This record gives sequence, structure tokens and C-alpha cells, in this order.
Amino acid sequence: MSAPVVPDSHAHLLEGAHVAQLATVRPDGSPQCNPVWFSWDGAHLFLSQVATTRKLRNMRREPRVSLVVVDPNNPFHYLEVRGEVDTIEPDQGLVFLASLTERYLPPDRRAQLPVEDRVVVRIRPTALAKELGYGAG
Amino acid sequence: MSAPVVPDSHAHLLEGAHVAQLATVRPDGSPQCNPVWFSWDGAHLFLSQVATTRKLRNMRREPRVSLVVVDPNNPFHYLEVRGEVDTIEPDQGLVFLASLTERYLPPDRRAQLPVEDRVVVRIRPTALAKELGYGAG
Repeated sequence: MSAPVVPDSHAHLLEGAHVAQLATVRPDGSPQCNPVWFSWDGAHLFLSQVATTRKLRNMRREPRVSLVVVDPNNPFHYLEVRGEVDTIEPDQGLVFLASLTERYLPPDRRAQLPVEDRVVVRIRPTALAKELGYGAG
Repeated sequence: MSAPVVPDSHAHLLEGAHVAQLATVRPDGSPQCNPVWFSWDGAHLFLSQVATTRKLRNMRREPRVSLVVVDPNNPFHYLEVRGEVDTIEPDQGLVFLASLTERYLPPDRRAQLPVEDRVVVRIRPTALAKELGYGAG
């Protein structure tokens, strides 16, 4: 299946340091939604996860996810990326966490992050949605 | 099952006019996530939906949902409400849509909303999550 193309009008939502909402499916089949940091290399989304979180366990069991980024300056402008987790790898030396921290936090706050056992979750987009006028509906 | 109590520290997230993220489950079992407007009466969450949307169809089939509200001034402060859709009723005279529009939009923008066949979705909370430090994980 060919990868969906992110339109130029929405690329900034993936390129900027925005907080995304990640929807996963729990073992009982109900949905879970959590704020996450992410990065985007033009083809995949990457998350840093503590190795023991519920949402990581959800993704190991059901790799299909949905990730939404809303423009903080215009809540009618948003992008939903549906995709599949294709790899979960150890974050050796916490190199990826350091890059994400640099993306999201000013220098004076970076030292506050705990050092934990972490993995890098890679998500392959399979579909996009960006309909307007969601607001009240 | 008794209703979970929203802590005072997080009540403003439900009381304010914030855009929430709604996670639903699609017929194929994968998750979907969409921005939504909502209201909160202290016991239930209410959404206005166009009668034909995919997320409404998802909720009719699988009533369990998750709704996240993030503090726009502090992305580490958020509330996830998991719950179940307990009623879906016609929005007679679009009375509920009008109240939501008043909650979210300044007067000069309210006229821009399309008039459509709409329903009111009532969600009964079953569990809350508000863990900190989600940021990078």
C-alpha cells in the first residue's frame, strides 16, 4: 500500500513541536487517548515511550493507532494520521529521547526529565484525515 | 459502578471551552481520533454530532470512548475521561448545537455554522486518567 501524502497545507503540523493525541486500543477493545510528543521524518512518526506504559502495551497487542495534531492557533485546522506501529526498538543511550527533549523543551527544563528504560516506536502512516468544520460536529 | 470524581485540580478542563480529542473504535477494530467540542454538566459529557459522521457510527457500534482535554497553557496538565455513550438523541430545534456554539464561538462567527441533521451524544464517565510527565513518554 502506498503511503499517503501529507498536503503542504498540513505539513507544518507534523514538522512543528506540537503535542499530539495518540489513540490506541486497550486489551478489552475500548479506546484510549493520550497526549504524546512525536517526531516526523517525512515518512514515519516516532514516539518515545517508557517501556512499561499501558499505551505501549496496547500498541504491542494492536499496532493500529491514530494520532491527531491540532493547530494551536486554529482549532479547525488539524491532521489525523492513522497508521501502524512497524517497529519498537530500545532507545540505546536515550539518544532519541534527547532529540525529542531538544525539540520540545527549552534548555533549562531538559534536566528535569527522568532517565528510564525507553523504546522508540515507529509508526507508518496508512491514511490521513483533515476534514474541516469538525468543531461542533 | 459509581462515577469517577473529577478532582478540583482538573475540573476547569471540563468546564472551559476547550477542544477535546475523542477516540472511538472503527468497525475494523482500529482506533480513530478526532477533535470535538463538548459540554459537561458535572455528571455527563455531551457532544453535538452530524447524524452521518463516521465517529458517530463508530459510537453506535462500540459505545466505549475516550476523551482527552489538554490545558492549552500547560501541556503536562490534562485529563483523560474514558466512558460509555449512554444516549444518542435528536437535537430538536438544534437547541444543543446553539448552546455549544455560544460556548465556543464569538457572536460574529456563529452564523457561519451549517444547519444539519444533528444528534446529542451523552457520555457517562467510567474512569479518569491524569498522569503527569506524559510528555516524552
